[in-house]
Order: sequence, then structure tokens, then C-alpha cells
Amino acid sequence: MTIRVVAKNQVKPEKVQEFMGLCKNLIEETLKEEGCIEYGVYQELEKPEILTMLEEWKDESSLDQHIKSDHFREIFPLLSECLEKETEINIYRKKL
Amino acid sequence: MTIRVVAKNQVKPEKVQEFMGLCKNLIEETLKEEGCIEYGVYQELEKPEILTMLEEWKDESSLDQHIKSDHFREIFPLLSECLEKETEINIYRKKL
Repeated sequence: MTIRVVAKNQVKPEKVQEFMGLCKNLIEETLKEEGCIEYGVYQELEKPEILTMLEEWKDESSLDQHIKSDHFREIFPLLSECLEKETEINIYRKKL
Repeated sequence: MTIRVVAKNQVKPEKVQEFMGLCKNLIEETLKEEGCIEYGVYQELEKPEILTMLEEWKDESSLDQHIKSDHFREIFPLLSECLEKETEINIYRKKL
């Protein structure tokens, strides 16, 4: 069964453009990974500084490999510098 | 463009079975709604009491109609009684 990731970011208002630029590179590389089914950045309708990655992976091992990839290890620390607080990450499996 | 909803619930440990039973009914009815693309309940891998609805709707008007539907208005208050705290709801549109 696939797994789903919700990685919710509260971005500093003055850093939204920078954050989006970094995400563009990250998404481009991530979509090439084997096991990546979906990987996109979504904006909250009422709070535009909430920018959340919604992801779907073939299995946990695909996600592990993503976390170890060069592009993730390079870009994630730069993304973190754009945030008001640490990314809130939840990893899910479908129940119903 | 479709919209995505993440509705995160922290369920009281002793209420997980009841919550899941209510969700089963809600999902069955919701999937029949026009404009519902996805509607499922997902469990956090490390925190099994976190049970989150991941939803996709054709547009905001489909979501509005869902909120007004008989099955939602009937079941949502019962779900709420199973929770440690209020559902955290975010509504998103894809940016990248």
C-alpha cells in the first residue's frame, strides 16, 4: 500500500518567493525518483503563508531514499531557513 | 483546479473504534457526491490516534455542498465527540 505525506510549512511572509523557487527545484528532481507517485506544493486558501507538500510514495523505502537523496539533503536546509517554525510532518497509510 | 482538504483529528484512544465506524458511513455517502474526487481516512504511522481525512474536490462549491449535506451534518458532530481536540482543517490549492 502506498504512503502519503503531509509536510506543512508556515513560511515567513518575506520568504515566500524564495521558498517557492527552492521548491521548484526540489519538485523537479523528486518527481524523477523511482517510487514517487505525487509531490506538489499546495497553498492554504485562507492563510497564503501556509505552503504544504502533499506527497504520495510507493512505500516507506521510497520515502527513505528520498530523504537520503542529494537534492533533498541540499535543498531542505535552505527551505527550513524560510520558515516561521519547523515543518510539521505526518506520514500516513490509508485505513478506510 | 481541484482543491485538497487535510482534516487532521486527534482521536481519544478509547474512541478509535467508534470514530472509524462513523467514518465508514460518512465515506460511503460522501463518495457518492458529485464533485468528490477522493475522500479517505489515513492513520499516522507513528501516532495511531492521529486519523486524518485526505480529500480532493472538484471545486470549492462541491466542498460547500458536502458541508451542507445531511450525512455530513449528522455524522460530523458525532465524530467530534471522539476527539481530544478540535479537527485541524486546511484547504489547499496546488501552486507547484
